[in-house]
Amino acid sequence: MRASRFLFATLRETPNDAEVISHQLMLRAGMVRKLASGLYTWLPMGVRVLNKVEAIVREEMNRSGSLEVFMPVTQPASLWEESGRYVQYGPELLRFKDRHNNDFVLGPTHEEVITDLARNELKSYKQLPINFYQIQTKFRDEIRPRFGVMRSREFIMKDAYSFHVSQASLQETYDVMYDTYCRIFTRLGLNFRPVQADTGSIGGSGSHEFHVLASSGEDDIAFSTESNYAANVEMAEAVLVGERAVATQELKIIDTPNQKTIADVSVFLNTDPAQSVKALLVQGIANEKGQVPVVALFLRGDHELNEIKAEKHPLIASPLEFATEAQLQENGLTAGFCGPQGLVEKGITVIIDRAASVLSDFVAGANHIDQHATGINWERDAKFTEVYDLRNVVEGDPSPDGKGTLQIKRGIEVGHIFQLGQKYSEALGCKVLGEDGKPLTVTMGCYGIGVTRVVASAIEQNFDDKGIIWPAAIAPFDLAIVPMNAHKSPRTVEAAEALYVELQAAGYDVLLDDRNERPGVKFSDLELTGIPHRIVIGEKGLDAGTFEYKGRTDAESVNISKAELMAKFSK
Amino acid sequence: MRASRFLFATLRETPNDAEVISHQLMLRAGMVRKLASGLYTWLPMGVRVLNKVEAIVREEMNRSGSLEVFMPVTQPASLWEESGRYVQYGPELLRFKDRHNNDFVLGPTHEEVITDLARNELKSYKQLPINFYQIQTKFRDEIRPRFGVMRSREFIMKDAYSFHVSQASLQETYDVMYDTYCRIFTRLGLNFRPVQADTGSIGGSGSHEFHVLASSGEDDIAFSTESNYAANVEMAEAVLVGERAVATQELKIIDTPNQKTIADVSVFLNTDPAQSVKALLVQGIANEKGQVPVVALFLRGDHELNEIKAEKHPLIASPLEFATEAQLQENGLTAGFCGPQGLVEKGITVIIDRAASVLSDFVAGANHIDQHATGINWERDAKFTEVYDLRNVVEGDPSPDGKGTLQIKRGIEVGHIFQLGQKYSEALGCKVLGEDGKPLTVTMGCYGIGVTRVVASAIEQNFDDKGIIWPAAIAPFDLAIVPMNAHKSPRTVEAAEALYVELQAAGYDVLLDDRNERPGVKFSDLELTGIPHRIVIGEKGLDAGTFEYKGRTDAESVNISKAELMAKFSK
Repeated sequence: MRASRFLFATLRETPNDAEVISHQLMLRAGMVRKLASGLYTWLPMGVRVLNKVEAIVREEMNRSGSLEVFMPVTQPASLWEESGRYVQYGPELLRFKDRHNNDFVLGPTHEEVITDLARNELKSYKQLPINFYQIQTKFRDEIRPRFGVMRSREFIMKDAYSFHVSQASLQETYDVMYDTYCRIFTRLGLNFRPVQADTGSIGGSGSHEFHVLASSGEDDIAFSTESNYAANVEMAEAVLVGERAVATQELKIIDTPNQKTIADVSVFLNTDPAQSVKALLVQGIANEKGQVPVVALFLRGDHELNEIKAEKHPLIASPLEFATEAQLQENGLTAGFCGPQGLVEKGITVIIDRAASVLSDFVAGANHIDQHATGINWERDAKFTEVYDLRNVVEGDPSPDGKGTLQIKRGIEVGHIFQLGQKYSEALGCKVLGEDGKPLTVTMGCYGIGVTRVVASAIEQNFDDKGIIWPAAIAPFDLAIVPMNAHKSPRTVEAAEALYVELQAAGYDVLLDDRNERPGVKFSDLELTGIPHRIVIGEKGLDAGTFEYKGRTDAESVNISKAELMAKFSK
Repeated sequence: MRASRFLFATLRETPNDAEVISHQLMLRAGMVRKLASGLYTWLPMGVRVLNKVEAIVREEMNRSGSLEVFMPVTQPASLWEESGRYVQYGPELLRFKDRHNNDFVLGPTHEEVITDLARNELKSYKQLPINFYQIQTKFRDEIRPRFGVMRSREFIMKDAYSFHVSQASLQETYDVMYDTYCRIFTRLGLNFRPVQADTGSIGGSGSHEFHVLASSGEDDIAFSTESNYAANVEMAEAVLVGERAVATQELKIIDTPNQKTIADVSVFLNTDPAQSVKALLVQGIANEKGQVPVVALFLRGDHELNEIKAEKHPLIASPLEFATEAQLQENGLTAGFCGPQGLVEKGITVIIDRAASVLSDFVAGANHIDQHATGINWERDAKFTEVYDLRNVVEGDPSPDGKGTLQIKRGIEVGHIFQLGQKYSEALGCKVLGEDGKPLTVTMGCYGIGVTRVVASAIEQNFDDKGIIWPAAIAPFDLAIVPMNAHKSPRTVEAAEALYVELQAAGYDVLLDDRNERPGVKFSDLELTGIPHRIVIGEKGLDAGTFEYKGRTDAESVNISKAELMAKFSK
């Protein structure tokens, strides 16, 4: 591509309304433009990246044995009524009427349409397992679209749906999709982690999110330094470490006027917050008479309650709700100064976190205003009902699989694989004849990749103060050739044109920057748009038989011979 | 692809609701399924064809220098209000509100969006000419969607839009697009014609439609047997042929009771309809007092009036309207028995078609009920105001470019290139700085290909009673391998597998029909789905060292050696 015939819509200034770096750089590099809130037009620079991402996704999905289909964006509301989602989905589902006053939706996802197809086309267990995918435009009417294409209203998804006669068959395809996703994100050149996700009622290993690690991510991902283990921080198990030491101190009551927080108390007493426990007083489950007990949770002072874990405990109300002031008074509990001592005796359920359970000689509230206790020891001073995993993991915790320790980084969700089970096949009556000749309801999986989101996440992970740093596989151009002083050096132009032809013939996407611009402008544009390699051709170099080469992240350019250059670019 | 792992959704019966052959065969071959009126899901068999069409379109558009973009399906109504089309477009434009009650449309076309992009991104004449294209989903709320994907509500278009500083620059890009379209449809393997289309007010060679010739087409296309000339029948000029012979007969009045039509009269008088003229009495242009004159048009008895041509005549009302009974009486005209004799003398404008103008000794009405005249001659018996091209061309007419004669076939419009001029750039204020430093309104062209429609039209042009006959470039699979009696012949399976691997390595899309079906079922499916080549492998052939080969349109299969086979399939 000749830059003079391309749309180089780069911007020097960072647009005001772009909050995240990928949105800023996609606008500045001339990849996208906003048409309306949450609607973006992809410019030529953006489409080149998008097409490369799509090609890799398509290639790997085909390799996995999934069959490509193409479903409409517009879907009849009747199918959504059958699944129950027409009402459930909320205002993100855009509903409209056609000219004949029939109800339709703009598809945010295609479970209903594919299940309808499957119930009509799949007759026998012999046709299963089968996995359909499409790469297609979706619409979700976000209340507040933001972060550019990261959370837009219209976006491109690769969505796949598989059909099975059994959970075992689903698991097999699920595992294939897990591997396929790993191959896709690896080929895209992204630093990613497959992350165990909350499966709600499904359980098991029924759901993984694929996260691109980037400091701007919306989710905290915990992953092992030495294995494939990775989980959303909310999902990661906090493993018990160590054993409780024997008690060496006596329990003492100390006046701690107005010292309510762990931080305050630790400073006041000159102790480590990790040597204290804090109370979280929450609602239990109502008894037959409708009375709701208080449950006291105790965590180490430096740890955070994981609400999802707490909600899974059978004695704790879900969703989690804190005890009311009235409940505290009823139970004789002192907010801000609650310790575990004597609670079980009062009939209160006391659940303590694993890490708290191995403390000895620790600090806690004294169950009296403006007083704390030191030298507390479990059993001797404080009974408890149960030890339970209640907290978020922190960096340095052991990995739950026993290999290495946990690191925590922020991640951007770009893919999700999910064992749907029979939710949609039951609702829509999708059955096939089983091996025994009787109809059986199929079991389903679904597998999504946010194709447009992948582009933004690649930038969030790879940029510097000069602009984007594309992974090689999805760069809009593989390399750029810049002839210096082209207007007065015919032989520079000639050499540039020759190299342009030669590298294109070698299979590279080459940009020949033949624009009538100063070298500084060209260099900035090439850095901003993240082209991985830059080759400058000038009179001096031609005299010396060298080209000036600079990789996108190299500090300095180097002069290399034609042979060295061609060795670098031989596929 | 192994057929056992593919979705072979073929149907033996022709579905009831499919009127045209492409719709029937696309359903029967398992290419598409209806989701709702005018909405189709493309199954794996269909997507394979669609992807090949898209790839060729994309490759040739890139080669032409057009830059790929990707615009949203949903568009803000405000842009359509700016262009004036929000009201004008009619109910095919689907309008809806988002959750914030803002007005949007589902894009049936993207002139507004691209012009909005251009007015923001294009600043200088130096950036022009530039041509943007996309391959994208469109929506048109057809009142009565029909013919499957041929006239559906959701469809895929390749649409392109070019921007220019001058008409001359537009013409250059237009010519490039003309050539590009010819290359695309040639590569797709279609018998097509670029056809001059009515440009309305633009004139010149400002619009061409690209038609795939097929007997089921909705348009009649006239094209030269010896040149590239082709036009919609309504647009083709009917050239004057021959000269008027001298009169040899006297005018005679003959009683022709109840013989009103040309056919009746010709039989009654035993004359050729081509030796008679017929009258069409239409409205002229109102004078200052509001009086509307009658204009009498005369055509040869076997020719048809071309309303578009008539409407272009300055003395004829547009749209064309026939004279009322009252007007006929006022002017002393006798419906069904009107001849040209004496009309000019009565003050009636008489316009005669070129072909009628060279008749002598002809038949016409006698301007008296139940009477005709024979032996009429122009000038001597009947004056006229003007000779004009009023008729549709017929087969055998000379081509207007002077080369060869015209043939007429039916065509399906699959592409359209159009010189838009400044309609949208004026309405939306799309200007760039000209070479003189002053703002100038850009001139635009637009270029569409109905990608999903191309697939259907390829079938309309290529089928037999067994099914589809794909052009090689867009067949879902290049060839199929069928092992005979696979369940009891391991060496047949082995040979089939080896050939499968070998032909795939040679770059072919190979279908290995490993389904547990009778050979007859497989052969029917392969013919129905239009796979160009079939290779059958059996014990006998293996003994003889041959494969059984049959091209899709071959009457019989032939036994060929491995070497002959591989020679056939060496890219």
